Amino acid sequence: MSKIADVAARAGVSKATASRALSGRGYVSEETRTRVADAARELAYVAHSSATSLATGRTQTVGVVMPPVDRWFFAELLAGIQDSLFALDYDLSLYGIPEGSDTRERLFESILPRRRFDGIIAVGIQPSAHELERLQRPGRPLVGVGPYSDGTSAVSIDDVAAARIATEHLIDLGHSDIAFVGGTTGAGPLSLGDELRIDGYLAALGTAGLADHARVAGSAPTLSAGYSAAVGLLADRRRRPTAVVAVCDEAAIGTIIAARRLGIAVPTELSVVGIDDHEHAELFALTTIRQSPRDQGHDAVRLLVERMDDPDLPETHLAAASALVVRSSTAAPR
Amino acid sequence: MSKIADVAARAGVSKATASRALSGRGYVSEETRTRVADAARELAYVAHSSATSLATGRTQTVGVVMPPVDRWFFAELLAGIQDSLFALDYDLSLYGIPEGSDTRERLFESILPRRRFDGIIAVGIQPSAHELERLQRPGRPLVGVGPYSDGTSAVSIDDVAAARIATEHLIDLGHSDIAFVGGTTGAGPLSLGDELRIDGYLAALGTAGLADHARVAGSAPTLSAGYSAAVGLLADRRRRPTAVVAVCDEAAIGTIIAARRLGIAVPTELSVVGIDDHEHAELFALTTIRQSPRDQGHDAVRLLVERMDDPDLPETHLAAASALVVRSSTAAPR
Repeated sequence: MSKIADVAARAGVSKATASRALSGRGYVSEETRTRVADAARELAYVAHSSATSLATGRTQTVGVVMPPVDRWFFAELLAGIQDSLFALDYDLSLYGIPEGSDTRERLFESILPRRRFDGIIAVGIQPSAHELERLQRPGRPLVGVGPYSDGTSAVSIDDVAAARIATEHLIDLGHSDIAFVGGTTGAGPLSLGDELRIDGYLAALGTAGLADHARVAGSAPTLSAGYSAAVGLLADRRRRPTAVVAVCDEAAIGTIIAARRLGIAVPTELSVVGIDDHEHAELFALTTIRQSPRDQGHDAVRLLVERMDDPDLPETHLAAASALVVRSSTAAPR
Repeated sequence: MSKIADVAARAGVSKATASRALSGRGYVSEETRTRVADAARELAYVAHSSATSLATGRTQTVGVVMPPVDRWFFAELLAGIQDSLFALDYDLSLYGIPEGSDTRERLFESILPRRRFDGIIAVGIQPSAHELERLQRPGRPLVGVGPYSDGTSAVSIDDVAAARIATEHLIDLGHSDIAFVGGTTGAGPLSLGDELRIDGYLAALGTAGLADHARVAGSAPTLSAGYSAAVGLLADRRRRPTAVVAVCDEAAIGTIIAARRLGIAVPTELSVVGIDDHEHAELFALTTIRQSPRDQGHDAVRLLVERMDDPDLPETHLAAASALVVRSSTAAPR
């Protein structure tokens, strides 16, 4: 009998209900959720003892490979992954993405292949085909978080759609001179997610017949980088756009701070829209596309646990929900 | 032969040099650092094979217990711990601090005691004596990060001194009406670190004969909470202080944003000083007390590894360096 089936049987619910309850999403009653979590813990307790572990080959450990958590998205995602693994009594073994290519090679060639995990969650690492091959192996499923997920199950938002919706919101308000803050800076490779967001921005402009107006102010997805890029973009009054789509909320908040410093009123002289719904978005009255990295963490664990349970499940890509949240950083152009 | 001695012998350096090189601090040449790191990895590779692990009882895994990493301090600290453990080829098993008391009990009573680690780093958890007893055991040293470290080795800044220096900076500039933003809000227990910072603030006021001017605007150590507390503190023009000491940079930046919204010029009408030197401190021209949580992470790993190596080493408390960084959020009162 499979693991989720075990839990379901012990809790007296269907396999589908057990799966939903364990994923941390809100489709089951609190009472059922508690019963399922208790059943999972009781079973995990048994699985955790060394003797059982040796017998079954289970380690009750999930490897998580992710970039530094000094950005909101990664910190929230990690919290979601932690919550779900804790509820299921799995240990979380955390690996950073080293910056140098030699340490990256050490991680993929030497460390991860020889560690024993029941499964791996790989976040934002854009692995090469070769690296994927080293990560994946029979009986050790891999779930990605992010758009670069050929050959694995994965969770991500639809980056193209998110940027397209953000750009269309500005077009609907009457803007035609809309710049994009984010994407390549010459400092490093463009992340695939950022590239897809630029694609969404360009697609919306193209559909509206505004393709000639496209311009991208390169910026890393951080507040400081967004600030610097925006200062460059906004300093010349004659070439100033009336609106900005930022690659993420941190870059959008950096843009708002830059506009204030330059004496440019938001939204009357400049509209700004971000992507994330960062914890500080409300404080800056930022119009944005909301995503929930915490829920993406729950979803990644659910996909992984289902595949540890049944390795023959098909590859699944979950597109996490995202929706426009209008606050007061956007308005019609003057 | 002990582990650091093994590494030192293999690298052809002294034990003290090996220890410094492994801690990631800058007192050894790059060439030596590389040689020591290579030696540590070669030895760890051997230690990592299951057969050796079973024979020695070593797991090459360090348990790290810490609050959610959605704050700059914890994200940076985790990065420092990750760097050092990666260099030494230790795995990092991450545990969050659950919010509910029942899940906290599960963590301390049931999960951590039965997992096998070579050592534990406990960050900001203010464990009870009973919890400490459950965490510590022969052959599994514990290192704390934070001020609440009776009975364990630990790394922290001197919170009292940090807040005292920040307050004295304002007194030296001529301020006498200085408020503190941070500490208890009635919403939860006051963290010991925040309490010590209030002590430092009060001590500086007392020495300057300004004890009667003390007032604390309660705030969690976050940007949003600092913003809200500052709005309450600054809204009434007649009772407005001329300067604010914030419990951390996030609360200080929230205070600066609140001042701007209220039309209060920083620093001419209000001086603001923080504690941290957060990555955004420079963008907000914030005068602050600099600490390096990343270095504290390196130091915590070094203390732990030394104690895994030699359990008889005495308890050691490292006070991490902190220094006043004057930018332009502070000035003499008008």
